[in-house]
Amino acid sequence: MNSTIQEKGQISIHTENIFPIIKKFLYSDHEIFLRELVSNAVDASQKLKKLAGFGEFNGELGEQKVTVTLNEEAKTITVSDRGIGMTAEEIKKYINQIAFSGASEFLEKYKDKLDEKGAIIGHFGLGFYSAFMVAQQVEIVTKSYREGSEAARWICDGSTEFEITQAERDEHGTDVILHIAPDSEEFLDKNRLRAILEKYGRFLPIPIEFDGTTINNTAPIWTKSPSELTDEDYQNFYKELYPMSEEPLFWIHLNVDYPFNLTGVLYFPRLKNDFQIRREKIQLYSRQVFITDEVKDIVPDFLMMLHGVIDSPDIPLNVSRSFLQADSNVKKINGYITRKVADKLSEIFRNDRAGFEQKFDDIGLFVKYGIISDDKFYEKAKDFCLVKTVDGKYFTFEEFTEAVKENQTDKNGTAVWLYTNDRQKQDGFIDSAKKRGYEVLLFDTVIDSHFINTLEYKLEKTSLKRVDSDTFDKLIDKGLNNESVLSEDDRNNLKTLFEEVLDNKTASVSVEAMPTDELPVIITLPEFFRRMKDMSALSGERSMFGPMPDSYNVAVNANHPLADRILKIGDAGEQKVLIKQSLDLAKLAQGMLSGSDLTAFIRRTVETL
Amino acid sequence: MNSTIQEKGQISIHTENIFPIIKKFLYSDHEIFLRELVSNAVDASQKLKKLAGFGEFNGELGEQKVTVTLNEEAKTITVSDRGIGMTAEEIKKYINQIAFSGASEFLEKYKDKLDEKGAIIGHFGLGFYSAFMVAQQVEIVTKSYREGSEAARWICDGSTEFEITQAERDEHGTDVILHIAPDSEEFLDKNRLRAILEKYGRFLPIPIEFDGTTINNTAPIWTKSPSELTDEDYQNFYKELYPMSEEPLFWIHLNVDYPFNLTGVLYFPRLKNDFQIRREKIQLYSRQVFITDEVKDIVPDFLMMLHGVIDSPDIPLNVSRSFLQADSNVKKINGYITRKVADKLSEIFRNDRAGFEQKFDDIGLFVKYGIISDDKFYEKAKDFCLVKTVDGKYFTFEEFTEAVKENQTDKNGTAVWLYTNDRQKQDGFIDSAKKRGYEVLLFDTVIDSHFINTLEYKLEKTSLKRVDSDTFDKLIDKGLNNESVLSEDDRNNLKTLFEEVLDNKTASVSVEAMPTDELPVIITLPEFFRRMKDMSALSGERSMFGPMPDSYNVAVNANHPLADRILKIGDAGEQKVLIKQSLDLAKLAQGMLSGSDLTAFIRRTVETL
Repeated sequence: MNSTIQEKGQISIHTENIFPIIKKFLYSDHEIFLRELVSNAVDASQKLKKLAGFGEFNGELGEQKVTVTLNEEAKTITVSDRGIGMTAEEIKKYINQIAFSGASEFLEKYKDKLDEKGAIIGHFGLGFYSAFMVAQQVEIVTKSYREGSEAARWICDGSTEFEITQAERDEHGTDVILHIAPDSEEFLDKNRLRAILEKYGRFLPIPIEFDGTTINNTAPIWTKSPSELTDEDYQNFYKELYPMSEEPLFWIHLNVDYPFNLTGVLYFPRLKNDFQIRREKIQLYSRQVFITDEVKDIVPDFLMMLHGVIDSPDIPLNVSRSFLQADSNVKKINGYITRKVADKLSEIFRNDRAGFEQKFDDIGLFVKYGIISDDKFYEKAKDFCLVKTVDGKYFTFEEFTEAVKENQTDKNGTAVWLYTNDRQKQDGFIDSAKKRGYEVLLFDTVIDSHFINTLEYKLEKTSLKRVDSDTFDKLIDKGLNNESVLSEDDRNNLKTLFEEVLDNKTASVSVEAMPTDELPVIITLPEFFRRMKDMSALSGERSMFGPMPDSYNVAVNANHPLADRILKIGDAGEQKVLIKQSLDLAKLAQGMLSGSDLTAFIRRTVETL
Repeated sequence: MNSTIQEKGQISIHTENIFPIIKKFLYSDHEIFLRELVSNAVDASQKLKKLAGFGEFNGELGEQKVTVTLNEEAKTITVSDRGIGMTAEEIKKYINQIAFSGASEFLEKYKDKLDEKGAIIGHFGLGFYSAFMVAQQVEIVTKSYREGSEAARWICDGSTEFEITQAERDEHGTDVILHIAPDSEEFLDKNRLRAILEKYGRFLPIPIEFDGTTINNTAPIWTKSPSELTDEDYQNFYKELYPMSEEPLFWIHLNVDYPFNLTGVLYFPRLKNDFQIRREKIQLYSRQVFITDEVKDIVPDFLMMLHGVIDSPDIPLNVSRSFLQADSNVKKINGYITRKVADKLSEIFRNDRAGFEQKFDDIGLFVKYGIISDDKFYEKAKDFCLVKTVDGKYFTFEEFTEAVKENQTDKNGTAVWLYTNDRQKQDGFIDSAKKRGYEVLLFDTVIDSHFINTLEYKLEKTSLKRVDSDTFDKLIDKGLNNESVLSEDDRNNLKTLFEEVLDNKTASVSVEAMPTDELPVIITLPEFFRRMKDMSALSGERSMFGPMPDSYNVAVNANHPLADRILKIGDAGEQKVLIKQSLDLAKLAQGMLSGSDLTAFIRRTVETL
């Protein structure tokens, strides 16, 4: 061994070593075998129809359908078609040599004659072998469409050995007979088989018969042109997809040929304030074969709230997530769907404003999520996204800016948009705002705290403040000073009295001149601090803050008659009770009175009755 | 073609067809290439150490380590070892024939001499080819440990063609040099490479050197015997695994040889009332190679809250989820871990009751989840699971049964366990219960509504009732009648008056004789109805019920002085205000007063001040 080693050669794969790996790991989900075999049968049927169309087959086409038969006693599942069939020579070529894709050769030969819709499912090579995931023996009985062909039988027991013999078969076509292995007997169940067929084959283009019934709709609406379809067709298809669902609000028909091929129908469901209603997922098909309803990386996250069907042969399957995200077709598909959705919404907004407003409670969550997460969507959505006031009036951003310009602009020229995130809890504050003629927006969906931040970032000279985050003179500081009926001494005195009873170092007490019909005491939660708290709660991180606000402002209304009474009362005990009650009432209005404090307040109030 | 077809043969796989599939789909995650190459290098090093141990290698062993080198300019990543190396003949055998597993042959030959710990990682066959997921050209320079061997170089550009030439290499061992492909240049990043090495190789048994430092701990504690380890060792290892975490509460060392091989250390983290704190996941290793931290189907769901490491070569990898769930080893592993965890908890409970109580707030969620979901765990846990009262006292189920037997058994002999799910909101009711000497349990974790149902199902003659679900005389009906100070006429009268003011068809009003120190009105939420509501909210289904209770009971206290006053008051307006205020106070105590009703109550009460 002293000479120079020099050799060129071919890497070889030993079939007996790789075969078990193909059998076991080809698909992680064993039920896929049925999808593959039925797809192959559909493929063979379509090929024959094509050939007849091209004039290359002049025999009897027969009724083209695929039949799946379960024999529980014999423990077999048979998939039969009346398609092109195979000669013994073709079996040797297509079946005995794994990964020699018959479909690709067929496509190559006829590619000029095939239009988009005529394309073949085509993974004949490997898919067939998925049969061995569940079968201990696989038998093929087949007869080619070619004139004078002999029928042939192929048998393989899952080792790499096969046997071909002559067979009897009257008509062209193929039967694939699976002798189910003991560890896969779960598939010898009629209901299970039907469920698998319905899952994968519901919209295959050739009729699939099982147990006496046809399980598929061979011409689902996404394969048709929108001009052939009525609203009812779309609604009926939605019911076909999701029998238990409410009617959809509207839908978008997707249809693009270039630079990728994609068809489909997306529906807008009624979302309400509910992020969870995603149970009806978007289904992904490849040439009418169901692939998955996990479309996470194919559809932008905010569009996952939609329902419906996407069919594209251009989405790479069976590849890793990071690969999907980087795939340029997938990126283009993402962009295309986003654009179509925005255009549809814009169209409804322009053509039917009243209808759009009616639907907005259902689609608002979706639109807002899009605005937050996708700048391109924002550019379109900013003109049709609506905000809603507590009185049920709807405005676009621009309209609202205009509507509040006069009354809600502060001395620095900043427009202040007041909002509530809980009209029940903040009822008293909303009430006071309305008395001043202010509009209060309702932002009570799960996404609104993010949406508010996005709005503030996008809109110029606009600030969003929750209605209970300060007293109104400070919320919208117009630079006017209210006159106080109390002297400065009295005010200082009052402040000290309240601070003593409140006994809370982190809360700050101020005495302010407010209208006499305001409450004697108002507790406010500063916007910035509270917003940080909301965000951290939403992000699910362990909050650095407790469940109660750590910091709040107590504003004592100097102009309320009670202020005067508290100052003038002789009895210190009575004075303390009055202060305590007015503080407790302010806490109540802010939802801050609970536990033993609430129990004590109730008992104290019962006594006054 | 008229004769009988009769042929037997071998299925063949064309290498040029299957090779692209192996390259592309072997692993969904491309970074795995580094795990595979480093594992192979470790494998080669361990083999040489074994051979030296068996006396079959007498040359110089050298320092056994694996070196990973990044050359950003040349765009190469090199993995080098000083292990057994290969001759040109061995390259042809092991590398050129894919799926010819060298490791299995090695294991076969030496199986009698190998103990558990000495086992080889061993997927030499396919793993090497994962290099082509990221490399456009792969080069091997290797020299066998056998005396007189020549070094050899193997080069392959990702097609099926290879070339072998003579090479220069002084020492035995192997360098695998990857020439990274343009679409994989992300891996030419020092930090990325280090991160991948640390992820997969952190506990490999041979030192892995990268960029001048050793990245692994070759003897992690789970490979040692518990008798060699101190508490500090376990705590330090926890810090090594999860540097940012709080100290664990305690831990379990897993070690089983038969019927499956499994080692590991599981830690109990401080859970508090937080299901979400699962970020520190259990890590699964196979012979010290990190495999995944997705252990969903390997570890029972309730044990997923634990942290730590499991190492087992007996868990089937790369297989489908349904397969995993059905695998008998996985089932046994599940059962074993559950048993060990229950035994550990039982041991701490018996040996250190005070310490166990201290820890229970942290582990209670876990124990309860186990009780709900796993009957075998329940059988052990029923003796150590604790319930806690609002006063902070802990009881086992048996102890609590005994403690409340006398005072909380109703006339039918059923023990009534009172509980609160919110001690703040139900403060007034808890207060009243305590006045009667009743114990109130605190069930305020997310899982407690399920836990309560499980308890009621498991415990005999025991009923759990929330403290505000009825008046106490009905909650624990001892068959005693309280005397009412009002006549029957008065009571009927009072009922009508309250019904008029309440004006709510779904709420039912009753007048009951309660102690005078109870509130004048109490609103209760019937247990059964409320529990259904809780369950449906927890299950995330769209509730059939609104956010407010649709149905509640209003109990007017006939013995409270206010009842008498309301009946005797002359002014109908004043009477109405009194009734309204006492109803509102009862609603407040039940957290049912909000929105405009609350605002009105506050304004009304301000006026009385």
